[in-house]
Amino acid sequence: MTFPLVGVVGGGQLARMLAPAAIELGIHLHVLAESEDVSATSAARYTVGDYRDLDTLMRFAATVDVLTFDHEHVPTEHLRTLEDSGVAVRPGPEALQYAQDKLKMRSIADELGLPNPVWAAVDSVEALVSFGEEHGWPVVLKTPRGGYDGKGVRVVRTPEEAAETTEWFELDFPALLVEQLVPFSRELSAQVARRPSGEVAIYPIVESLQTDSVCDVVTAPAPGLDPEVAAAAAEAASTLAERLGVVGMLAVELFETPGTGPGFLINELAMRPHNSGHWSMDGAVTGQFEQHLRAVLDLPLGSTQPLGAYTVMKNYLGGANQDLYSAFDRAMSEYPSAKIHAYGKSVRPGRKVGHINVIAATEQDLNQARAIAEGAASVIRDGVPSADSAR
Amino acid sequence: MTFPLVGVVGGGQLARMLAPAAIELGIHLHVLAESEDVSATSAARYTVGDYRDLDTLMRFAATVDVLTFDHEHVPTEHLRTLEDSGVAVRPGPEALQYAQDKLKMRSIADELGLPNPVWAAVDSVEALVSFGEEHGWPVVLKTPRGGYDGKGVRVVRTPEEAAETTEWFELDFPALLVEQLVPFSRELSAQVARRPSGEVAIYPIVESLQTDSVCDVVTAPAPGLDPEVAAAAAEAASTLAERLGVVGMLAVELFETPGTGPGFLINELAMRPHNSGHWSMDGAVTGQFEQHLRAVLDLPLGSTQPLGAYTVMKNYLGGANQDLYSAFDRAMSEYPSAKIHAYGKSVRPGRKVGHINVIAATEQDLNQARAIAEGAASVIRDGVPSADSAR
Repeated sequence: MTFPLVGVVGGGQLARMLAPAAIELGIHLHVLAESEDVSATSAARYTVGDYRDLDTLMRFAATVDVLTFDHEHVPTEHLRTLEDSGVAVRPGPEALQYAQDKLKMRSIADELGLPNPVWAAVDSVEALVSFGEEHGWPVVLKTPRGGYDGKGVRVVRTPEEAAETTEWFELDFPALLVEQLVPFSRELSAQVARRPSGEVAIYPIVESLQTDSVCDVVTAPAPGLDPEVAAAAAEAASTLAERLGVVGMLAVELFETPGTGPGFLINELAMRPHNSGHWSMDGAVTGQFEQHLRAVLDLPLGSTQPLGAYTVMKNYLGGANQDLYSAFDRAMSEYPSAKIHAYGKSVRPGRKVGHINVIAATEQDLNQARAIAEGAASVIRDGVPSADSAR
Repeated sequence: MTFPLVGVVGGGQLARMLAPAAIELGIHLHVLAESEDVSATSAARYTVGDYRDLDTLMRFAATVDVLTFDHEHVPTEHLRTLEDSGVAVRPGPEALQYAQDKLKMRSIADELGLPNPVWAAVDSVEALVSFGEEHGWPVVLKTPRGGYDGKGVRVVRTPEEAAETTEWFELDFPALLVEQLVPFSRELSAQVARRPSGEVAIYPIVESLQTDSVCDVVTAPAPGLDPEVAAAAAEAASTLAERLGVVGMLAVELFETPGTGPGFLINELAMRPHNSGHWSMDGAVTGQFEQHLRAVLDLPLGSTQPLGAYTVMKNYLGGANQDLYSAFDRAMSEYPSAKIHAYGKSVRPGRKVGHINVIAATEQDLNQARAIAEGAASVIRDGVPSADSAR
């Protein structure tokens, strides 16, 4: 077998960040991009095409050895057709449906005996109100599909607020997901990788700080996490990967709930490299993008050993600075240990356009690493160029 | 200034390995490749063209913000013409000539008071014999230009052997370089980076083990190196970078000569990322390819802090295995902590086709790291696939 060609459906930054890992391993990458100007097109070979169109998918799949994804939005029935026609779809539709559909995810977690918040499928405002009355307000209403970064999610605090959700029940879903609003101490995330042969590799459980429902700062491993909770969370992620037949990276977002049950509840799943795993690009022997490639190619998985006591990842979103590069001079000058990642995207307010990783060699360096990551991110986001960067 | 475009003359593995660093930073890369099937063409945008042709170079340079190099073979007069026409040539011809011409390099090292072996420019067998008689046999005869990996170098042990070098003096060089064969304990290498604004970043001095005149195993930092020798070697490399006006990575290959003078002598220079610096790709906060990009773009340089006590780099050359990928299964399975790099080149005996990096977290892990690097490299080179890799 010569060096294989991995096809990636979707041209966002996750597809883009697979490219460096592919180049280092000699693996070929080809992206099915939404348009010319998405993140991955300046980093890898690509074809522009609509991932909702089966013919486009079939033609693209015919040119690759393995098909994987930048996102979970490819219709499940298309994935089934691809798989039935012999395409190596990784992760496959049987697994991927649990990341695509939050109702299915809650059901399977219950089935597997994994810690879920109290939840129900509801198809009307009345059913939503009954759930709130029975289990207590506030509750969280979610569309089963299509949500991300806080979209498709609404906190409902009272029966009166529930009455305002009529439009949600007119969306094209048979039912919506409602859950108890979990009183959690912080959010955690588990990353594991699984290859078709079955091997699973587990990364340390990380702390994931969200700001306005968007992943903001990740600290790996999660500081001060009870080792028993960490082990149980890793075990839950590993169980999900194995029992759902995941291939590639799986991220399991968790709520830490000290003193209740196993100390955590499952929030959401993503079956691909995930923002909460970006720390591993610079902070672990094998970054999640290399690991995803290994997994989808059924290669043995790499070591997940961290390279420092902690690694801090800080996202920078589109802000005041339209010209990110103009701020590199100051960011690099003030923070020589910051690993700057830029996604090649045009700047729009609140859009994820890059991230910073900083390794804390020892436990004592954690606060400094946080300050460096925050500092570099804010310089790039806000763009206060140094005096001589106008040259 | 929006994200710039760096042009690289030459499409070998050094150009290829700039690509991942460029993608992570959002920087655009465009390679002037010798042909379609060189190493870098599967990793970056490219144009095929002859770097010896001035028009080709001028057309290529007109499309980029900064011009840099995969090798030192572009004619100096072409580089001068490019620079005179306003192209940002980095490193520039004034600096690069000292890496292109070993006689100029020896002269400038003498001028700067840096430790050279005894040497002379010779233009005949007679002059070569006189040098040997005066300074003692054996001596080393080198072409001033065009040599690499032991090519263009000949050890001459006796006046009789000198008589066999008539053809060398018929080559198109006004004079050849002759040096005393230095009795050294091992080879070392210093890597530094310099940006046009003047800042210099220094990597730890490494040990470089050559096999058949080709870089084979690098250990960073060089185990057991006298700290005074390390400091003096770093100082010498830094002086060369500053006084020659180097921009980008500079590698200074050294002979360790314990008990004589400063404990080392200068062997050769390379003004680009260099094999002896590949360890930094996985073993330092800022790898040499990212550092080279920062330097040629006049961005502040990154931290050269190592990520472990040691990093071991082992090259794998073309050997019995024509199908490198077929051995990945076994190499990855046996050595999960090995960072495998493959250059996308067809396999020919003795050709550099990839390398392995392994981090030794602590001093005690060094022997194991060496064994892992050697093991993974030999599995890939010799290709003994695992039983199930035929799938």
